[in-house]
Amino acid sequence: MSIHSVRLLINSFIKRPCTHFRSFTNSSCLFNKSTARYQYQRELTKREANLHKQFIQRYMAAPMNDENVEKLLEPFRAAVKVQGDIVKQMKDSNVNKEDAEFKQAINELKIRKKKLEDQIAKAMPKEESIDRIKMEDLLKRRFFYDQSFSIYGGVNGLYDYGPMGCAIKANMLSEWRRHFILEEQMLEVDCSMLTPEIVLKASGHVDRFADFMVKDVKTGECFRADHLIEAHLERLLKAKDIAAEKKAEIERLLPQVDNMKGPDMQQVIEQYKMKSPVTNNDLSEPVAFNLMFATSIGPTGQLKGYLRPETAQGMFVNFKRLLEFNQGRLPFAAAQIGNSFRNEISPRSGLIRVREFTMAEIEHFVDPTDKSHPKFETVANLQVQLYTATNQMSGESARFVRLGDAVSSKLINNETLGYFIGRIYLFMTKVGIDKNRLRFRQHMGNEMAHYACDCWDAECKTSYGWVECVGCADRSCYDLTQHSKFSGERLVAERALPEQKKIQVNEVLPHANVIGKSFGKDTNQITQHLQKLSHEDAKVLHDKLDQGDEKITIDGKEYTITRKMFTFRTSEKTVQVEEFVPSVIEPSFGIGRIMYSMWEHNFRIRPESEQRTYFTLPPLIAPYKCVILPLSGNEEFKPFVKDISALLTQGGISHKIDTSSGSIGRRYSRSDEIAVPFAITIDFDSLKEPFTVTLRDRDTFKQIRAKIDEITNVLQGLSSGTITWGEICAHYPAFVEQQSTTNAQ
Amino acid sequence: MSIHSVRLLINSFIKRPCTHFRSFTNSSCLFNKSTARYQYQRELTKREANLHKQFIQRYMAAPMNDENVEKLLEPFRAAVKVQGDIVKQMKDSNVNKEDAEFKQAINELKIRKKKLEDQIAKAMPKEESIDRIKMEDLLKRRFFYDQSFSIYGGVNGLYDYGPMGCAIKANMLSEWRRHFILEEQMLEVDCSMLTPEIVLKASGHVDRFADFMVKDVKTGECFRADHLIEAHLERLLKAKDIAAEKKAEIERLLPQVDNMKGPDMQQVIEQYKMKSPVTNNDLSEPVAFNLMFATSIGPTGQLKGYLRPETAQGMFVNFKRLLEFNQGRLPFAAAQIGNSFRNEISPRSGLIRVREFTMAEIEHFVDPTDKSHPKFETVANLQVQLYTATNQMSGESARFVRLGDAVSSKLINNETLGYFIGRIYLFMTKVGIDKNRLRFRQHMGNEMAHYACDCWDAECKTSYGWVECVGCADRSCYDLTQHSKFSGERLVAERALPEQKKIQVNEVLPHANVIGKSFGKDTNQITQHLQKLSHEDAKVLHDKLDQGDEKITIDGKEYTITRKMFTFRTSEKTVQVEEFVPSVIEPSFGIGRIMYSMWEHNFRIRPESEQRTYFTLPPLIAPYKCVILPLSGNEEFKPFVKDISALLTQGGISHKIDTSSGSIGRRYSRSDEIAVPFAITIDFDSLKEPFTVTLRDRDTFKQIRAKIDEITNVLQGLSSGTITWGEICAHYPAFVEQQSTTNAQ
Repeated sequence: MSIHSVRLLINSFIKRPCTHFRSFTNSSCLFNKSTARYQYQRELTKREANLHKQFIQRYMAAPMNDENVEKLLEPFRAAVKVQGDIVKQMKDSNVNKEDAEFKQAINELKIRKKKLEDQIAKAMPKEESIDRIKMEDLLKRRFFYDQSFSIYGGVNGLYDYGPMGCAIKANMLSEWRRHFILEEQMLEVDCSMLTPEIVLKASGHVDRFADFMVKDVKTGECFRADHLIEAHLERLLKAKDIAAEKKAEIERLLPQVDNMKGPDMQQVIEQYKMKSPVTNNDLSEPVAFNLMFATSIGPTGQLKGYLRPETAQGMFVNFKRLLEFNQGRLPFAAAQIGNSFRNEISPRSGLIRVREFTMAEIEHFVDPTDKSHPKFETVANLQVQLYTATNQMSGESARFVRLGDAVSSKLINNETLGYFIGRIYLFMTKVGIDKNRLRFRQHMGNEMAHYACDCWDAECKTSYGWVECVGCADRSCYDLTQHSKFSGERLVAERALPEQKKIQVNEVLPHANVIGKSFGKDTNQITQHLQKLSHEDAKVLHDKLDQGDEKITIDGKEYTITRKMFTFRTSEKTVQVEEFVPSVIEPSFGIGRIMYSMWEHNFRIRPESEQRTYFTLPPLIAPYKCVILPLSGNEEFKPFVKDISALLTQGGISHKIDTSSGSIGRRYSRSDEIAVPFAITIDFDSLKEPFTVTLRDRDTFKQIRAKIDEITNVLQGLSSGTITWGEICAHYPAFVEQQSTTNAQ
Repeated sequence: MSIHSVRLLINSFIKRPCTHFRSFTNSSCLFNKSTARYQYQRELTKREANLHKQFIQRYMAAPMNDENVEKLLEPFRAAVKVQGDIVKQMKDSNVNKEDAEFKQAINELKIRKKKLEDQIAKAMPKEESIDRIKMEDLLKRRFFYDQSFSIYGGVNGLYDYGPMGCAIKANMLSEWRRHFILEEQMLEVDCSMLTPEIVLKASGHVDRFADFMVKDVKTGECFRADHLIEAHLERLLKAKDIAAEKKAEIERLLPQVDNMKGPDMQQVIEQYKMKSPVTNNDLSEPVAFNLMFATSIGPTGQLKGYLRPETAQGMFVNFKRLLEFNQGRLPFAAAQIGNSFRNEISPRSGLIRVREFTMAEIEHFVDPTDKSHPKFETVANLQVQLYTATNQMSGESARFVRLGDAVSSKLINNETLGYFIGRIYLFMTKVGIDKNRLRFRQHMGNEMAHYACDCWDAECKTSYGWVECVGCADRSCYDLTQHSKFSGERLVAERALPEQKKIQVNEVLPHANVIGKSFGKDTNQITQHLQKLSHEDAKVLHDKLDQGDEKITIDGKEYTITRKMFTFRTSEKTVQVEEFVPSVIEPSFGIGRIMYSMWEHNFRIRPESEQRTYFTLPPLIAPYKCVILPLSGNEEFKPFVKDISALLTQGGISHKIDTSSGSIGRRYSRSDEIAVPFAITIDFDSLKEPFTVTLRDRDTFKQIRAKIDEITNVLQGLSSGTITWGEICAHYPAFVEQQSTTNAQ
């Protein structure tokens, strides 16, 4: 096998080609196998490419491009564009972002965008919306998830995943690990959720991770201020007798609520005389409420801690160890899967806004002067729906753009960011997200954190609107810089210089004996503090001491430092490398939100009955790969159920056994409900050699008949995606009716 | 293939027989393959049985049975036995457990057991102990794990797993899922960690999950009282000039500290004038400190919550949903993997006692009248080291006992408990726990919670002593009963009666209009409360109201109920089923402790150099399955590194690439350190057709030469355990020296 064909083999789409142990004992057959696999995979690649093309063609003629709808939307798009241009002009002229006129222009842009979005929502064809009540009923009835502690009345914003939700989640995380961690050789970590306050001071969460809330002054019940105001205003809008003037005023106000601070909110609450929606009592003034759960670590009550609000910080504080693990080389990515916690004021929207949730985050550390990516080519040809800041400013829809073009035209800031957008796209579609309802929305300048240089959210369209499921941000060097500042550790990497150079080095050499006379047992602490000073800080201290004694503070304690306590040494040094603070590109996945969107995108109702609801989850993600159904309670079927179950267990195929008494049709429906893609039925023909069963496909209802000892292989292929149902149908005889009913007892 | 041979195939030891997709397209070869597999697996089974026998033989002649040692231990064993017999006699005569004489007898037994244990520890041969400092140095240096937040000084009892620890943990959890959940079709759940207080009131944690602590009266520093007392007494014991009398007194006191309550501790602290070990300041009186982390859920501060101290409660509160999911049938098992939190007063012993840790727990719900297990047979022949309560009472060592015998002789209470002990044994040994250092210790009557009917801990011997890694308890119906009582929900299952019977039914029919007049908006709540009453409680309320009005309390509010508010109806009903509260058998795994024990059991130092330390982890658990090493930095090797890496990724084989500049020997050492079992080396022969590489085994140093396109198969087989290194060596040519050094540049 030439190295060339090995390379081709690698570039194909197939993963995990399972192989039989006989390959070892009879290696002569290996070459043939590999060749066959190679050809097979090349065909698959072609097929994938075709499917992709068909999809693009279909989508480009999708409802949103319908002429009448476009005519309707046209003035709204134009209105956004006019205002977008004004904002752009102001930005280009380097306006101060705190300027009142600029703020007003931004506000106006938001108002117009909101109107456009409302119009688009109205124009959405009926069939794209789903019956959420029916779907959530199914999810709860078959215990995909449900409210936690409901035998005690439940707690808002906390949910438990039952066996089906849990299996889907485990499958999704295992695919995430394979798709991201294994593929890129990322360094996975598993860090503490309990986090001391200082870490979250550094990250900014202690000071800024808050929402405004108002309290019912009598009962103490709390409401999230922006939600309460929006709900009140929307209720007013719906009133039949609302005056045109009032309506316009509210329509202008609504899009601004999102960005209001406490005093603005208070003004609106007073102006509209808003009361508690539950008791009609007066409301308190809005106060900022930090969304982190606080606790005390250890028994003294003196170490304040929080439950982490994101998994990212664990990777930043471990940066040095990870860099060392990677033998000092950049770029590398850290990854973490784990739970985070946010004490939402009044959680709503089911699984979309919860108080405890699983995240999967990547921190890709990279030299800020080189954000190219060696594997960008592998995603450059993907056509991904991008909703750029420019689209949003111009009232345009999201557009399908080739990722290679998006990066070369600087729509997307750099290759690494573009690579991750491509990989996120591939992951999302593989786990069952509908390509039609997935877009990448770029943050507009005013939404983005001041340190970020580009940020895209992967959003899924659901009955709650477009939901942010994955964030993908280039956060520049903000996080490492902050932790360096707060911890005193230098979180930097080194790059080789094109040629060696001379630099000036300032060193602090503490005289422990002199320090000891003044500060006794604190000597060590002071010595260490001073030795850790950067060259620049050491220089500054040196210069200050020339003017007189200087006070420094360590752990809240103040010390007066004098000139005699140290020697300062300035020298020249020849260096081959220079230090720098790496940039970080952060793809951050909300697993619960992806799962929820996936359920909505795969929920179906059979045309023949409103009661027959099911999920078309891909086999890779489905909670069980198959169900085993004996045709009846006949004793002769029982050993077959047991044996087939054992064979599947051995083959690593998760499955369910349904020996309940319902009719076979009813039992098929029950397994369709929990998204089981395939059903093995044991009937009277199964009892005779060559021992066969039928295999039924959830989505097409079609059945084939196969030998028992082939079933494991078939299901392994179908579950991992190396074989399609269509190929199985072409190879095996279709099953139409029960042959041996005469044997029935 | 006959059903008989299918059955045999199933009973073999092989798991996940990976199969090639060509099996679909050429099904004629399937039968041959299956037959070959069957034969191969039968041989493996035989080999396993042989290995097991050899192991038992070797172990039965192990150091502990050395004659001289036994002579030394004999009087200590006898002393335990004498006292054990006394305790047993007292128990047999149904002595009150609070009786002072009985308590003293138990104490004396403990003292004698402790002495025996000390003697055994002394007699332990040197080679069984490990160099813990060297091992922990390696674990931290290569970032298996390390203290969390150490750039901020770290937090005691919190640890982060780095890439190696994290990969090992993921492998272990994935094997746990396969071995337990998939094998038994358990219902996995994933429940909230945040838990409202009422749930932990019901479980008893709010009232009883506490340790005693003492505070330094000046600095406020806290110490765990029992640890402080033990450390102080042990220090006294070590003093050279200690009087014989004093020594005896302390030796009698030490084993009792474990079970002391506050006042007893205070007495000892006073008697021995104990001070803070850090400052020598006085200590406060011991106070009980609850070990749960408290927080507030929601913004009002009114819903008190805790971080769960175990995952079990999530399964109990979901019992009804799970039973329904299982179509009302028992037995079934729920399982959960997740983090739990315990606010240890002063964590120590590295990973053994931490504040945040991952557990994997099973709750197997079963009819208390039938604890048989259909698969018990599959573990009945295992010889497992049991340390029964009787052994402990008689001063005997743990013994290897056939599980079948242990259950039939009632050493182990029932088949289900015995089955889980067997499955735990198989899991532990599969993930690398040394069979010689694993025992199942039965709780003695006085250690066991009052409701439990039998309890065994899987303990691993480490340098910290025997560490409890898995608990396996029959908790009878305690948990469901408690949650029924606190929540008002009936957590019961139904069993069919042998024949139908008539029962008396008491119903409460509330008159909402009458209740409404007295209680307004609370009517609904009261009505619901009364409708939920059990037949028995309804009857009691009925009888009480005959005597006069009755006060009831709902959610802390009191209501006076009168006769007029309800109709009570007593009727007879014919029933086919009866309700009962299921028993629960709970295997509970501490994943961090298992990992730590596994590291100790697999830590090795090469005889040729003290510096060359490594871990002999089984490939199933190893963080990477292999490392790819080019012989040098030669440009020609680079495409091979890339291609082999891509092939392995495709085959799902986790691996590391080491292209650093060290010598090949040095790089082998580096990968041995992180437990990588196999190394692929690309040398100059690799560049020529037929493109081969060498494969090296970590434990034996042996190398073979194989074609690149066979490597994935070989590694898949080795990683999953379907092929051994010995078999690979038999099949492939051994590699001895570099053939093509002449090509070196």
